Amino acid sequence: MNELKNITDLEYHGDGPVDYSLLDASLEKCVALIGQMDLPEERLRKAPGLKAIFNVEGNFYQNIDYDYCFRNGIHVLNCGGAYSQAVAEMSLGMALDLARGFSREDRRFRAGNETYLGEGCKDSVLLSGADVGFIGFGNLGRSMLSLLAPFHCRTRIYDPWIPDSVIDEQGCEPSTLEEVLSKSRFIFVFAGVTRENQGFLNQEKLDLISENAFFLLMSRAAVVDFDALNALTLSGKFSAASDVFPQEPMPEGHSVRRNDNLLLSPHRAGGIPQAFEMIGRMVLDDLSLILRGLPPVRMQKAQWETVKSFASKPAG
Amino acid sequence: MNELKNITDLEYHGDGPVDYSLLDASLEKCVALIGQMDLPEERLRKAPGLKAIFNVEGNFYQNIDYDYCFRNGIHVLNCGGAYSQAVAEMSLGMALDLARGFSREDRRFRAGNETYLGEGCKDSVLLSGADVGFIGFGNLGRSMLSLLAPFHCRTRIYDPWIPDSVIDEQGCEPSTLEEVLSKSRFIFVFAGVTRENQGFLNQEKLDLISENAFFLLMSRAAVVDFDALNALTLSGKFSAASDVFPQEPMPEGHSVRRNDNLLLSPHRAGGIPQAFEMIGRMVLDDLSLILRGLPPVRMQKAQWETVKSFASKPAG
Amino acid sequence: MNELKNITDLEYHGDGPVDYSLLDASLEKCVALIGQMDLPEERLRKAPGLKAIFNVEGNFYQNIDYDYCFRNGIHVLNCGGAYSQAVAEMSLGMALDLARGFSREDRRFRAGNETYLGEGCKDSVLLSGADVGFIGFGNLGRSMLSLLAPFHCRTRIYDPWIPDSVIDEQGCEPSTLEEVLSKSRFIFVFAGVTRENQGFLNQEKLDLISENAFFLLMSRAAVVDFDALNALTLSGKFSAASDVFPQEPMPEGHSVRRNDNLLLSPHRAGGIPQAFEMIGRMVLDDLSLILRGLPPVRMQKAQWETVKSFASKPAG
Amino acid sequence: MNELKNITDLEYHGDGPVDYSLLDASLEKCVALIGQMDLPEERLRKAPGLKAIFNVEGNFYQNIDYDYCFRNGIHVLNCGGAYSQAVAEMSLGMALDLARGFSREDRRFRAGNETYLGEGCKDSVLLSGADVGFIGFGNLGRSMLSLLAPFHCRTRIYDPWIPDSVIDEQGCEPSTLEEVLSKSRFIFVFAGVTRENQGFLNQEKLDLISENAFFLLMSRAAVVDFDALNALTLSGKFSAASDVFPQEPMPEGHSVRRNDNLLLSPHRAGGIPQAFEMIGRMVLDDLSLILRGLPPVRMQKAQWETVKSFASKPAG
Repeated sequence: MNELKNITDLEYHGDGPVDYSLLDASLEKCVALIGQMDLPEERLRKAPGLKAIFNVEGNFYQNIDYDYCFRNGIHVLNCGGAYSQAVAEMSLGMALDLARGFSREDRRFRAGNETYLGEGCKDSVLLSGADVGFIGFGNLGRSMLSLLAPFHCRTRIYDPWIPDSVIDEQGCEPSTLEEVLSKSRFIFVFAGVTRENQGFLNQEKLDLISENAFFLLMSRAAVVDFDALNALTLSGKFSAASDVFPQEPMPEGHSVRRNDNLLLSPHRAGGIPQAFEMIGRMVLDDLSLILRGLPPVRMQKAQWETVKSFASKPAG
Repeated sequence: MNELKNITDLEYHGDGPVDYSLLDASLEKCVALIGQMDLPEERLRKAPGLKAIFNVEGNFYQNIDYDYCFRNGIHVLNCGGAYSQAVAEMSLGMALDLARGFSREDRRFRAGNETYLGEGCKDSVLLSGADVGFIGFGNLGRSMLSLLAPFHCRTRIYDPWIPDSVIDEQGCEPSTLEEVLSKSRFIFVFAGVTRENQGFLNQEKLDLISENAFFLLMSRAAVVDFDALNALTLSGKFSAASDVFPQEPMPEGHSVRRNDNLLLSPHRAGGIPQAFEMIGRMVLDDLSLILRGLPPVRMQKAQWETVKSFASKPAG
Repeated sequence: MNELKNITDLEYHGDGPVDYSLLDASLEKCVALIGQMDLPEERLRKAPGLKAIFNVEGNFYQNIDYDYCFRNGIHVLNCGGAYSQAVAEMSLGMALDLARGFSREDRRFRAGNETYLGEGCKDSVLLSGADVGFIGFGNLGRSMLSLLAPFHCRTRIYDPWIPDSVIDEQGCEPSTLEEVLSKSRFIFVFAGVTRENQGFLNQEKLDLISENAFFLLMSRAAVVDFDALNALTLSGKFSAASDVFPQEPMPEGHSVRRNDNLLLSPHRAGGIPQAFEMIGRMVLDDLSLILRGLPPVRMQKAQWETVKSFASKPAG
Repeated sequence: MNELKNITDLEYHGDGPVDYSLLDASLEKCVALIGQMDLPEERLRKAPGLKAIFNVEGNFYQNIDYDYCFRNGIHVLNCGGAYSQAVAEMSLGMALDLARGFSREDRRFRAGNETYLGEGCKDSVLLSGADVGFIGFGNLGRSMLSLLAPFHCRTRIYDPWIPDSVIDEQGCEPSTLEEVLSKSRFIFVFAGVTRENQGFLNQEKLDLISENAFFLLMSRAAVVDFDALNALTLSGKFSAASDVFPQEPMPEGHSVRRNDNLLLSPHRAGGIPQAFEMIGRMVLDDLSLILRGLPPVRMQKAQWETVKSFASKPAG
């Protein structure tokens, strides 16, 4: 925040609920807004010099009159990219755990039931050279793809929002959702949730996943039929890891807590201290550019075609 | 084995103890020996056409008259490299677990004590950009370094057997043991055990490890004072993971089983099915070359300067 | 073009000068325009359904009422990225030529004056491990940085339009123009030309270049004092390569044609057949997305902060 | 040399012809020999403490009784690897020149015949994504493969001395000589010359090269029918570059000097100052290891299976 003060006049309104009368009083001379306040056209009109709205979350919400912003050259920015390295590292770590079973074997060791050497490794596989599939190829997918480079995997990607050529250029294979699900040993779900795609990973789709595959749900619980996922892994058809859940916290006695084929991570993949530091850095960088009359380059810009379809709610 | 038969006459003597009278009878026309049989000079003299001894383990043992082999142009080969990809992937997965605590949080989730979002991530760190240290830079270290490439770490390496220039060329920093221990956030022990270096990671050295560091023992338990390691991690000074133990199995009630800061892996890093397949492939490849009068290129050759200092015992 | 017809109704108006009466008649139902026609507000108003203007050049020109487009959600796109791979490969090839003198020695060989072995290599240097500097870090710089990865250079970058953190993240060093010029052995000029930066590489700046450096002008001649560059290289202070010239063609007897320390490339770095194919592909990809109601992802979008400062004229 | 003196007693016998009586007098206490002196068994017997012979060239010659050395644990080392980075960079630069014609167009520019923009680029191609072939996969091939990584080529490799799996592991395709020649756009010859393979790239094989391919002869002239290569490129079937010639210097009026489709490099690819510095470093490193009782790791060891088949003569 001190660095912010160095580059501009900062008015800090605290972390709690927004005091809109206070906010409205400041808008006249305001160049940028940082936070998730309600910004209908009526309020935005009070800020004739506004150049950017910094939404310090990973997704866009329906709190802003985006049309007004687009017509008036106001950037609406989020910091989705800030979390992607943290999520990618967590995804890789959990994928390696599914492949090698080390958290399971650590539990057995603590219980005095461990097995040494080859005996306990019969279902262990390498990630190197494996068939990998991504569902969604935004920031998370790109960060993950970088980490996968030394593993020389064959990577299939399904993302209906980008052309095949973009996937080709990354050395991956543009694929249908069905191909990704049925042909991959490791499947990573990195898709955001929109009004249209809720629950698209339904029972029928999950049934396509091959035996002994590893399925990692890293983005939003709402894209998957979670009960079906829980049942399929409980039955031992394949193993999975999930960082997101349909309810957080999950009910006390839920069967997910007894599912040995599901690695349970309570929404911990993205929000680590270094991600928050990076968000501060990104805001500072882009605000500096904007104050110098240059376009922002670090944060993600809302695009009019897609912003209204995002259905995410704030994570907190 | 069928492929072996295709390239040469194979005599298979089974998996159990060696029948030496049977073996001796075959040596006259023998070109290559595969296994860990006793091979003193007296026996080797019976095999005038012998060109190679394939030791299908990751280390050399004191079962062979190496001097005789060197004087007579007999290659002695082991398959250390075959395990290194498996160990490197396991090392990376366990390092990410130490950094993010996902196996610990999975245990808490199962117990109904999980914490969602940032609250549970306060001690989580990225591997990307971290200070990393290797103790030992043979096959394991090289495989690991490849996997670390996309993380852009600063990597310090201690290995008294190789010149600094070899480390420089890999973009790493040649370092003393003390530097690696005191300056690294992630420390990987990849050193083999010799007559000279047993227990070289003693209490005094382990005390150099900084608070909140992550220490991964991936090669041989004999290089470390294991009791000191257990005590330091029990006390919470730093966290660790270990794939090897001074006794395997460890005693039933050993405090290691209650150590929450020590990830326990019962010697599972290397011996996975794909490693065994690779060993078969390596033997086949090098035997083919040798039968064609060419030097082997896939397996590791015993070198007279070092082979006699190896103190490892067979893992099985 | 056939592929274009497959995804939409195409009206093709030929390659020659635009027939504006014909164009105006088509605007009513037009969704996208491809080409460099004049598009003042008056004409744009005739195209109420217009969603995108595809400018199939590497830069933006002053032929469009950009304000109107921004206010009305019309994407203005160019295909700068299409040339960058071709320019990067050419830049690398010419840099290696400056470092090793192979085109110069080929000329001597043809003249019968060649020198064999070490004698003719005394001034040869490796690119590997060298100090490299970029002036400008847009598409060209990024493509070049990818090609440089295996050379493990120390790369300093000057680009006033992007924050230091973007350069840091690429493993490069954000630097002043003076640092890039004075500390680099290889200097690549990838900067576009704007109203403000014409001739910014003036005599005073070029004097900072160290002896025996290699200077490659790959983007726009207008950013450099070309006479000063010619004089400095003629005098032998450093060597250079240039793909662009203040006049094209250069005058017949110009001293540049006798300058043995200047590799002469008549604007050949970008416009190769594969670049033109990629442009077709990019237009097709982004038009497909736009017709499906999705944002374009392959071409570069005009940004209101910068588009009006571009001073480039069409290359042809 | 000063560094050498720091680690051992050095006797320097000058750069000229060896004074064998002087040498013989020193052998009694000699640990290592550096140079290309004649070393028959009779002389080697005078050096009972000899541990290594450093041959500071890129190949092995028939000046040493290798059998004696192998039987007696004397390492014979060459510094082939020291040149490989220099050769790889030169190979890449010349390949890019063949692909883009920049040395040819520079000649035309000097003659006042240059063509600007697309017109002069119609036969230009990218290296990125191209079909590449290697003939020989030793040090040179490996260094080259590293430099090619960002180009994402499909790389076929022919090398009868190594198993397919070694090539597979590098992400390349093990291929026959015929496949490499007929299917590659860029062909790199990195093969050493042995008693058996002289002239193996004969007329019949060269006829397999496809039209518009680029052929780069980087290792030894003796592996190719040079007259056939000259004729095929003169006729315009394909283009080539050569760093080595059947006679050096080539005869004054030889047609090679008028061959516009052959880039002529008078044996300049390897012997650059930084390669010589690296040789010094390698000798120093390995000698240090040997004096400490450790095996050398930087230089190439003579192998009894292959050393006697090398037919190279010293380059100088």
